[in-house]
Amino acid sequence: MSNTFGKMLAVTTFGESHGGGVGAIVDGCPAQLTLSEADIQPQLDRRRPGQSELTTARDEADEVRILSGVEGGITLGTPIAMVIDNKDAKPCDYKDLVEVPRPSHADFTYKSKYGVLAASGGGRASARETAGRVMAGAVAEKLIALRHGIEIVAWVSSVGEIDTADLTEEKISRALVDETAVRCPDADTAARMEDAILEAKADGDSLGGRITCVCRNVPVGLGEPVFGKVNALLAQAMLSIPSVKGFEIGSGFEGTRMRGSEHNDMFIMKDGRTGTATNRSGGVQGGISNGEQIVFKVAFKPVATIRKSQNTVDVNGKSVVLELDKGRHDPCVLPRAVPVVEAMTALVLADLDLQSSARR
Amino acid sequence: MSNTFGKMLAVTTFGESHGGGVGAIVDGCPAQLTLSEADIQPQLDRRRPGQSELTTARDEADEVRILSGVEGGITLGTPIAMVIDNKDAKPCDYKDLVEVPRPSHADFTYKSKYGVLAASGGGRASARETAGRVMAGAVAEKLIALRHGIEIVAWVSSVGEIDTADLTEEKISRALVDETAVRCPDADTAARMEDAILEAKADGDSLGGRITCVCRNVPVGLGEPVFGKVNALLAQAMLSIPSVKGFEIGSGFEGTRMRGSEHNDMFIMKDGRTGTATNRSGGVQGGISNGEQIVFKVAFKPVATIRKSQNTVDVNGKSVVLELDKGRHDPCVLPRAVPVVEAMTALVLADLDLQSSARR
Amino acid sequence: MSNTFGKMLAVTTFGESHGGGVGAIVDGCPAQLTLSEADIQPQLDRRRPGQSELTTARDEADEVRILSGVEGGITLGTPIAMVIDNKDAKPCDYKDLVEVPRPSHADFTYKSKYGVLAASGGGRASARETAGRVMAGAVAEKLIALRHGIEIVAWVSSVGEIDTADLTEEKISRALVDETAVRCPDADTAARMEDAILEAKADGDSLGGRITCVCRNVPVGLGEPVFGKVNALLAQAMLSIPSVKGFEIGSGFEGTRMRGSEHNDMFIMKDGRTGTATNRSGGVQGGISNGEQIVFKVAFKPVATIRKSQNTVDVNGKSVVLELDKGRHDPCVLPRAVPVVEAMTALVLADLDLQSSARR
Amino acid sequence: MSNTFGKMLAVTTFGESHGGGVGAIVDGCPAQLTLSEADIQPQLDRRRPGQSELTTARDEADEVRILSGVEGGITLGTPIAMVIDNKDAKPCDYKDLVEVPRPSHADFTYKSKYGVLAASGGGRASARETAGRVMAGAVAEKLIALRHGIEIVAWVSSVGEIDTADLTEEKISRALVDETAVRCPDADTAARMEDAILEAKADGDSLGGRITCVCRNVPVGLGEPVFGKVNALLAQAMLSIPSVKGFEIGSGFEGTRMRGSEHNDMFIMKDGRTGTATNRSGGVQGGISNGEQIVFKVAFKPVATIRKSQNTVDVNGKSVVLELDKGRHDPCVLPRAVPVVEAMTALVLADLDLQSSARR
Repeated sequence: MSNTFGKMLAVTTFGESHGGGVGAIVDGCPAQLTLSEADIQPQLDRRRPGQSELTTARDEADEVRILSGVEGGITLGTPIAMVIDNKDAKPCDYKDLVEVPRPSHADFTYKSKYGVLAASGGGRASARETAGRVMAGAVAEKLIALRHGIEIVAWVSSVGEIDTADLTEEKISRALVDETAVRCPDADTAARMEDAILEAKADGDSLGGRITCVCRNVPVGLGEPVFGKVNALLAQAMLSIPSVKGFEIGSGFEGTRMRGSEHNDMFIMKDGRTGTATNRSGGVQGGISNGEQIVFKVAFKPVATIRKSQNTVDVNGKSVVLELDKGRHDPCVLPRAVPVVEAMTALVLADLDLQSSARR
Repeated sequence: MSNTFGKMLAVTTFGESHGGGVGAIVDGCPAQLTLSEADIQPQLDRRRPGQSELTTARDEADEVRILSGVEGGITLGTPIAMVIDNKDAKPCDYKDLVEVPRPSHADFTYKSKYGVLAASGGGRASARETAGRVMAGAVAEKLIALRHGIEIVAWVSSVGEIDTADLTEEKISRALVDETAVRCPDADTAARMEDAILEAKADGDSLGGRITCVCRNVPVGLGEPVFGKVNALLAQAMLSIPSVKGFEIGSGFEGTRMRGSEHNDMFIMKDGRTGTATNRSGGVQGGISNGEQIVFKVAFKPVATIRKSQNTVDVNGKSVVLELDKGRHDPCVLPRAVPVVEAMTALVLADLDLQSSARR
Repeated sequence: MSNTFGKMLAVTTFGESHGGGVGAIVDGCPAQLTLSEADIQPQLDRRRPGQSELTTARDEADEVRILSGVEGGITLGTPIAMVIDNKDAKPCDYKDLVEVPRPSHADFTYKSKYGVLAASGGGRASARETAGRVMAGAVAEKLIALRHGIEIVAWVSSVGEIDTADLTEEKISRALVDETAVRCPDADTAARMEDAILEAKADGDSLGGRITCVCRNVPVGLGEPVFGKVNALLAQAMLSIPSVKGFEIGSGFEGTRMRGSEHNDMFIMKDGRTGTATNRSGGVQGGISNGEQIVFKVAFKPVATIRKSQNTVDVNGKSVVLELDKGRHDPCVLPRAVPVVEAMTALVLADLDLQSSARR
Repeated sequence: MSNTFGKMLAVTTFGESHGGGVGAIVDGCPAQLTLSEADIQPQLDRRRPGQSELTTARDEADEVRILSGVEGGITLGTPIAMVIDNKDAKPCDYKDLVEVPRPSHADFTYKSKYGVLAASGGGRASARETAGRVMAGAVAEKLIALRHGIEIVAWVSSVGEIDTADLTEEKISRALVDETAVRCPDADTAARMEDAILEAKADGDSLGGRITCVCRNVPVGLGEPVFGKVNALLAQAMLSIPSVKGFEIGSGFEGTRMRGSEHNDMFIMKDGRTGTATNRSGGVQGGISNGEQIVFKVAFKPVATIRKSQNTVDVNGKSVVLELDKGRHDPCVLPRAVPVVEAMTALVLADLDLQSSARR
């Protein structure tokens, strides 16, 4: 259950890592939006496995097909179903996992909950599930770009101990982000990140890190008070991504150290509108967008699936040394997670935008 | 909109800071649960304003009345409506805010979104809205205590720069937490926190901080894959609380610095069940509870409403110095936010528990 | 569960027949709508028990209080909580029902499902639950009257065997409907209906009947394809009212006897808009309003609670003769159900209107 | 929007009449259910066009493929995506409809609402959309058959003026229903219905009718009070099917003519359980199943798309004679609608069953 997200723009994703395919249905997209596979494929390509030596060797073209909701390049107002086929599936790679659940992976909890485990490496807990989100996010992104010019850019701001120096967020574009394979817009830091990832990969180990995301041109007034706050829905959206362990918006955890008089964003006039001098609020006040950039950070743990041997127990409680030498895994998911973060952000904003329009 | 939270156990809250009352309806609570006002009042008392010199001087008894859903001390399976009356309301305290929106407060965004502002200091953005959550949370908490013995304990783990040394989480009870007015279970740190809060109060300023929460005896298998992950719903729940800017579970942001081989929680046998040697996962793997303690942290910014003068602009864009000397505000919301964090946690777990039962 | 109805305008009702009170929360009403108790009380008065000799003798003033969401006579965009107190509650009237479930009443199914029965005559299955719907419906009605001039009028079109001759629906107003206690706009038929009801009452028996409802000035385009069709939501709304056993829109069951060529509503020009020459569609085509009057009928069974003796079995399966001589019941609910039908209709249309606005 | 139905077992359907395919995702099906295409295909075959001379000549094999959620013939607890390809699509058949909306069809309302019309004959308003429901219903049906032995059988009980004599509902099985092409279990009546349909077909006209449905072995206690009553959800489900204009359960509209003392179903002991002597309630009391057969009827209008010439107006308001000689349409949808009614019924009961389990 819970494979649907959103209220007025709702995405439902489906598909196992190694089944017939993965996909998504977007329900609620207004009619008459220009849309084709070409709008969706670029973000899927950024998420695709096998795109650089930093990612898993699994090779999937991940070509999206739109099955419904679009005719003659125009949305009909009906559900947009999108699917990509699984091609390089090797379910046999994973068969031992039923016997020895991978530490910190979902094998144990899925088996406990469902009594059955996809013989295919993670099932819905696989990162492959996020392909459906990326497809849906591309639709949402197009919608809010057209309605408001909203622009969403995410990048890798830390990998392991390597952190970007303070970047001037205003200048970061997707093109700049994509200049490095690791998707960090600071070239020097990116180089060090890539070295660190390759080193971890050589060790059969994995690295975590942080993604930062900014949303520009968000109109004032998105978000619903109480449980539908922009920040609350972004938090849910981000923590729903595999491997994510934390979310902070604006000043986040650091801001807890400040006094109110230091932390408050004073109102000033900006190009004829009421803006704020600083942006510790991260673009959201009282759960509602205030017209400033929405800025937040997402923490990804190091991937649980590693080749290094691990001392653990099997399903019978017997101590074993787990050695995973056959599966193909990312030493660091961050570079491929960038479009996933952007997609989930777009889904949240598009849904809130439609909700907001309803009552104007 | 969005004043309802939960799917199988759904709470709907209502009430402005200074209207007729605030309350909540809990829909979906099973029948035959023993329940009375006495189960709900204690958590409301911990949230109540005026309970110590650390909190706002506003004095509200906050006595809950159950209007429906309970008869003869037993739940009927029907909606449980609960209400507390607003007594010490002074709407006149706030009338200037319509002219000068408070920096980093919801005044500006609410006015922009709704075109109207409760002449009563925050309306639904007021911390007073959280009283409804606490009532509902008390019902949820009773339910999961009976079904599984689940125990939820939250405490203030930092205030401004003052941070608790590493505490042994296992020993912390609500009774211990309540031994200090600031609700920090380490007496020495608590004393320093209280001094800092009183100092900020004297300055007309405010402080932020962090609340840590643990959930014990959570059965394996709560949480739904993809968008209904335990951690995703906890994140939404926490970020929906006023002033919250961040959420992290288990190793959180710190965990991003580790390698997978260091971070993974190895499985071991514990009292005949499969457990983990460490708990960097924070009790959740693949979005599903794994039987370990659920542990997470919540970042609260310093309260936006301060008495110190602030250079800002009014609704016409004219520069003004805002001096709020009349309203009554908390210099630090953390002590009173502890039961709110517990309540939202209980609502998430109870809802997921009912969802989980449905498919067994 | 399932005490909430609607998506963008959501009502949650609460309250037992004989508890502390009954009420409703309306979430999603736009801000800046003029609203006060005076907008809600008239429909409550039409639903009130004790309004004529045709109804139950139970005497409730049913005075509504708005607890939240409105300030200075204007909605705030926040949840509107409304409540009426139960005053003339006599729970003792019903205590035997736990032993002998009333035939065709909810006693047996509630007891089976929940294991506990409100010692108060029906709990949520009581017609008293509908007071919450009427409050909420009055808010919805005001909203759609302001936005589109939508007008909803329902009336009693049959009682037992007594059926209205064909009425010219265009001329029927609420004022006309209220000219007779039975709420049938045809005076002669109304007189016969009243006689029949009084006769049944004298016999300790009850009568059913049919309510017809028309909605005028509904804009083209309300309703969502597939599961959110106007007619589908109206059907759910009507069948959710106690005692309702049937729903038909436009030509309904009679229309099944016609050929397509006779049944189809030909398009014609009407005052510069595309309209239809006939209205067998009942104002809805493909689930979406077409600008014609929405017209539907609702079947109410005779009330299950009667004073006549009934041969049935008790909870132990022992044959008993049930004689209910103490409770106070309506011999015919139709006259009081008229505002309930109007309320549920308003809730459906207002919700669909907000949904529809979202994507324009 | 509104292409999702259900709460704990949710189906989302997608697909236009003439796009890439139609399908459904079922979310919430418990794990470890044996399931394969062979469980789904039979009901699709009963819905398939071209199965007899009574139906449209459009020829679609309608072979279902399961894309996800099942592995090794066992459900995984993850979303079950199912799809059938559109093969015999002839979008050109419909291009004139943009100019002249078909009377009583959705062309006009869709075009008004969305500003764009699927150049493909109805888009989501097409009966082809129901294929997704049938797939999903087959999954639901298997689930409740396993959990409770629930059996759902629907049949054509009237076509135009031809009505079945009173049938003994107990003996009707799907096999018996399928003995005639028209799906009426009374052979004599069936023959007359078939003649009538062929006659209407020859005239380029269409016929409506009524489907009756019974559900056996439904446990006591399904259904939620107030808005989630079994009858309310069945009504929504049925009215969401294209061409449906009415729904009645148990005694329905006829029951409004009876007195309470005649209508009430007296409790009696039946095989050791409390049952009722009659079943005017149609298996539901207070919105909750009472253990008797659930019995209801559904009214289908005559199909709007006919070949007979019709005097109507085009999009510019100009009078035209519409002659549809090219499209391929059913003269009577009733025979093919039988599995659709069964599918929607199964979805309602399975969802309520899961909801009900949650609180036990």
